[in-house]
Amino acid sequence: MYFKSTFFGDYQLQDKRVTLGRTITETDFVVHAGHTGDFFPHHMDAEWCATQPFKRRIAHGTMIFSIGIGLTASEINPEAMSKGYDKLRFVKPVFIGDTIHSEITILEKGESKRPEYGTVTEHVEIINQHGEVVLVCDHLLVVKKKSV
Amino acid sequence: MYFKSTFFGDYQLQDKRVTLGRTITETDFVVHAGHTGDFFPHHMDAEWCATQPFKRRIAHGTMIFSIGIGLTASEINPEAMSKGYDKLRFVKPVFIGDTIHSEITILEKGESKRPEYGTVTEHVEIINQHGEVVLVCDHLLVVKKKSV
Amino acid sequence: MYFKSTFFGDYQLQDKRVTLGRTITETDFVVHAGHTGDFFPHHMDAEWCATQPFKRRIAHGTMIFSIGIGLTASEINPEAMSKGYDKLRFVKPVFIGDTIHSEITILEKGESKRPEYGTVTEHVEIINQHGEVVLVCDHLLVVKKKSV
Amino acid sequence: MYFKSTFFGDYQLQDKRVTLGRTITETDFVVHAGHTGDFFPHHMDAEWCATQPFKRRIAHGTMIFSIGIGLTASEINPEAMSKGYDKLRFVKPVFIGDTIHSEITILEKGESKRPEYGTVTEHVEIINQHGEVVLVCDHLLVVKKKSV
Amino acid sequence: MYFKSTFFGDYQLQDKRVTLGRTITETDFVVHAGHTGDFFPHHMDAEWCATQPFKRRIAHGTMIFSIGIGLTASEINPEAMSKGYDKLRFVKPVFIGDTIHSEITILEKGESKRPEYGTVTEHVEIINQHGEVVLVCDHLLVVKKKSV
Amino acid sequence: MYFKSTFFGDYQLQDKRVTLGRTITETDFVVHAGHTGDFFPHHMDAEWCATQPFKRRIAHGTMIFSIGIGLTASEINPEAMSKGYDKLRFVKPVFIGDTIHSEITILEKGESKRPEYGTVTEHVEIINQHGEVVLVCDHLLVVKKKSV
Repeated sequence: MYFKSTFFGDYQLQDKRVTLGRTITETDFVVHAGHTGDFFPHHMDAEWCATQPFKRRIAHGTMIFSIGIGLTASEINPEAMSKGYDKLRFVKPVFIGDTIHSEITILEKGESKRPEYGTVTEHVEIINQHGEVVLVCDHLLVVKKKSV
Repeated sequence: MYFKSTFFGDYQLQDKRVTLGRTITETDFVVHAGHTGDFFPHHMDAEWCATQPFKRRIAHGTMIFSIGIGLTASEINPEAMSKGYDKLRFVKPVFIGDTIHSEITILEKGESKRPEYGTVTEHVEIINQHGEVVLVCDHLLVVKKKSV
Repeated sequence: MYFKSTFFGDYQLQDKRVTLGRTITETDFVVHAGHTGDFFPHHMDAEWCATQPFKRRIAHGTMIFSIGIGLTASEINPEAMSKGYDKLRFVKPVFIGDTIHSEITILEKGESKRPEYGTVTEHVEIINQHGEVVLVCDHLLVVKKKSV
Repeated sequence: MYFKSTFFGDYQLQDKRVTLGRTITETDFVVHAGHTGDFFPHHMDAEWCATQPFKRRIAHGTMIFSIGIGLTASEINPEAMSKGYDKLRFVKPVFIGDTIHSEITILEKGESKRPEYGTVTEHVEIINQHGEVVLVCDHLLVVKKKSV
Repeated sequence: MYFKSTFFGDYQLQDKRVTLGRTITETDFVVHAGHTGDFFPHHMDAEWCATQPFKRRIAHGTMIFSIGIGLTASEINPEAMSKGYDKLRFVKPVFIGDTIHSEITILEKGESKRPEYGTVTEHVEIINQHGEVVLVCDHLLVVKKKSV
Repeated sequence: MYFKSTFFGDYQLQDKRVTLGRTITETDFVVHAGHTGDFFPHHMDAEWCATQPFKRRIAHGTMIFSIGIGLTASEINPEAMSKGYDKLRFVKPVFIGDTIHSEITILEKGESKRPEYGTVTEHVEIINQHGEVVLVCDHLLVVKKKSV
C-alpha cells in the first residue's frame, strides 16, 4: 500500500490490472453477516439451503462486492476520488471455498463539470477459480488533470 | 427475520419503508478493513487524516453500502431476486459515531424478459443523524407475478 | 427488526413463534472463545476432544444460549422488559455444523408488584436439525398493561 | 487454564473466588450484536438511546452473562459438569466503559439421582467498578464423588 | 488468570511448564489477516497454494507466535517484565486443523544492570499434534529479587 | 499486494523503506486478546490500569509486532523466505489511539549454507506518532541468488 499520483492524462483506455486471489471462507460469511446484520438463511442456514436450487449457502452480494473491491486497494492515487458505482450486477453465486480475484479495465474517459478534472470509468470484473465472472460493476472516478 | 411472499402486483409505486438506525463505530471501521483488506489511511490513520480536508477518518464506501443494505434485511421475499444495483453514489462522508438508517422507496416497475416476472426498482437512501443523505443507490429486483 | 407494542393483555397462553435457523460454524466457536475468554479444550482442541466421549468439539453453553436468544430478536416490544431467565438447561451438545432454531411459547402470565404491569413467562426451546431440544430456558418479562 | 480435579467432597459451602476484571468496550457491543444477530437499538443506536431513560447504549444481557461466566473459566474441573443456570437476573444496566468482574460462592450442595455424584450450586455475582451487582445467577453443577 | 508473585530466586533452571492445546482453524487465518493486514496468498489463496510446495495455506508466522505465546498467559507475575524475544525461528509450517501447544523451559538466569533485578530467559517451543516443534523463541524477562 | 522478484544481489545495505501508518484502536486490543487468549488486565482492565504506572491500558507486545510486521506486507518476493526474527525488543508502550508505522533498513548480508542462497537481515523499527521507536527487531531472510 503506497501513494502514487496518477493524473487524468495518465489513464489509458483498455489498460488492465489483475489482482491476486482470495479464497472466500465460511468465516467470511459469518463475519459479513455479523458486520451487516444480514442473517438471511441463504447465507447462514446450511439445512435450508440444501432444500434450495443451489444446495449450498451462497455469499452475500454485498460481501463479494466489498471483498472484490478491497482486493484492488493497493495503490492510493491522491489525484482521484471515487464517486460511486454503476451497473453492479450479481452474475453468479459464490460458494464457501471459491477463490476470487478482480480485473479492472479502463473503460471510458470524459469531461467533468469542473474543467480541471476528468471522469474515468473502470470496469471491474470479479472472477472465480473457474474463470467465471461472478460480479461486474463500473467504478466512477473523478481525476485531477495535471496542471500545465 | 421471516419469510413473506410479495408478488410483482403487490409492489406499489412510491411505497416507502424506513429502517431502524445504527451507530457506525470505530469497531466497524476496523472490522471492515480487516474483512476487505482495504487499510487505506483515509479509514485507518487518524494522524494522516488530521492533515486532510475532512480532518477525521471516513468510512469505507463499501461499508456504508453493506451496512445500509443490511439494515433493510428483515423480511425475506421468496418471490424476489436481487439482480444488482445502479447509480450507487457516495454523497457525503460518514464519520465514527454517526448514526445511519435506510429509506427504501418503490421507484419503478417494468416488464421482464420472462413474462411470468416483472422488474422492480427500489430507490435506497442511507441517511445520517442530521437527516443528510450519505449514499444513494437503486436496487434492481426481478419479482414473480402471481399466477392466475 | 421493527417496533411493535404488545401489551400484557395481548399475550395469549400457548401462543408460539418459531424462528428461522442458523448453522453453527467453527467460526462461531472461535468468535465466542475470543469474545468471552473461555478457551477450554472442550471447545478449542480437536485433538483432545477426540479422546473424550463426544469425540468432537462441543459448543459453549453460553454461545448456544446467546445465539438461540439472538434468533428471537426481530420484533421490539417497547412495552416489555426482560427481567432474566429461569431453568436454563444444557440438554444436548451442539457440534460444528449443527443448525439450530428457537421456538418460543407463552407459558405463564401473572401479576406484578406494580399493578400497571403483569409478568409473562416465555418458554424457549433451542432445537437442532434432528428435531432434538439442545437447550431450554424460561424467559421472564414484565409487560405493561394497556391503560384504560 | 489448567486441569485440576475437585471432587464433590472438596466443595465447601461459602467458599468464594473472585475473578480479575475486564472493561466492557464498544467493540464488545459490536461483536456481540454480530455474533448473535441482535441489533436492537438499545445496544446499537446511540441517537435513539439518547432519547431513552438510560441515555446511553446498554449492553446485551446475554453478553454480560457470557463474558461474566467467561471470566470464571480458568481452572478446568474434569469431575464436574455444568447442567445449567437458575435465577439469572439482569439487575442493573452495563454501559460502554464499565469494568466488570465475577464473584462465585458455593451456595448449596445436594444429592444427585446417581449416587456417585452430588449437585453443587454456585452463586455468581457479576459486579461493576462501583461495586454494584449487575447480574446474578445460580450455576448448577453435577460433581463426581471421590471413590473410596 | 490470576496474580502470583514469583521472584528472581524462585525461577529454577530447567523448570518446565506445558500449556493446553488449541486447534488452529481457518477462522484464525482469516482473523489474523484482517488483524494485521497481511493477505499474502500463502495464507489466503487456496488455489494458488495448491500450486506451491506445501499444497495448502500455511499460517502466518506472527500468528503462531502470538497464539503460542497467548497460550502461556495464565499466571500473571507482577514481579516480572517482558523485555522481548531472541532467536525466534519458524521451524515448520502450521496448517489449518493443526493443534498446537507451548512448552516453556527456564533456560538461563543472569544479573541485570539494576542490582535489585535479575534476567531470566525462558525457552519457548510451540509444538504440533505430531510432536514436531513448529516455532521456537527465547523470552527475555527482567525479574525483581526478593528484598531481604 | 503484488509479486516482484528481488534477488540476493538486489538487496543494498542501508536501503530503507517506510510504510504508511495505522492507528491502534481499542478494537485492536479486544481483537488481539480474543485472537490469542491473552486477557491480562494490562490490556483489558481500564480500572486496574488506572492504578498502575502507565495509568492506561497498554498494547500486547505480540500485537504491535504482528501489526507492525503486517504493515510491511505489500510486495511479495518469491525469491525470499522468512527464517525468523532476532533481537525483538519492546522499547516503549503503545496506547489506544497511538498511530504506528514501520521502517525497514537492510542491515546485513551474508552467505547461506546453500551456495545458491544468501542471508539478508532487515532491521525493523516500529515508530509512533511522536517519532519514538516502540519496538525493534531484526528480520532474517534467506534469499535466492540470481542464477548466471
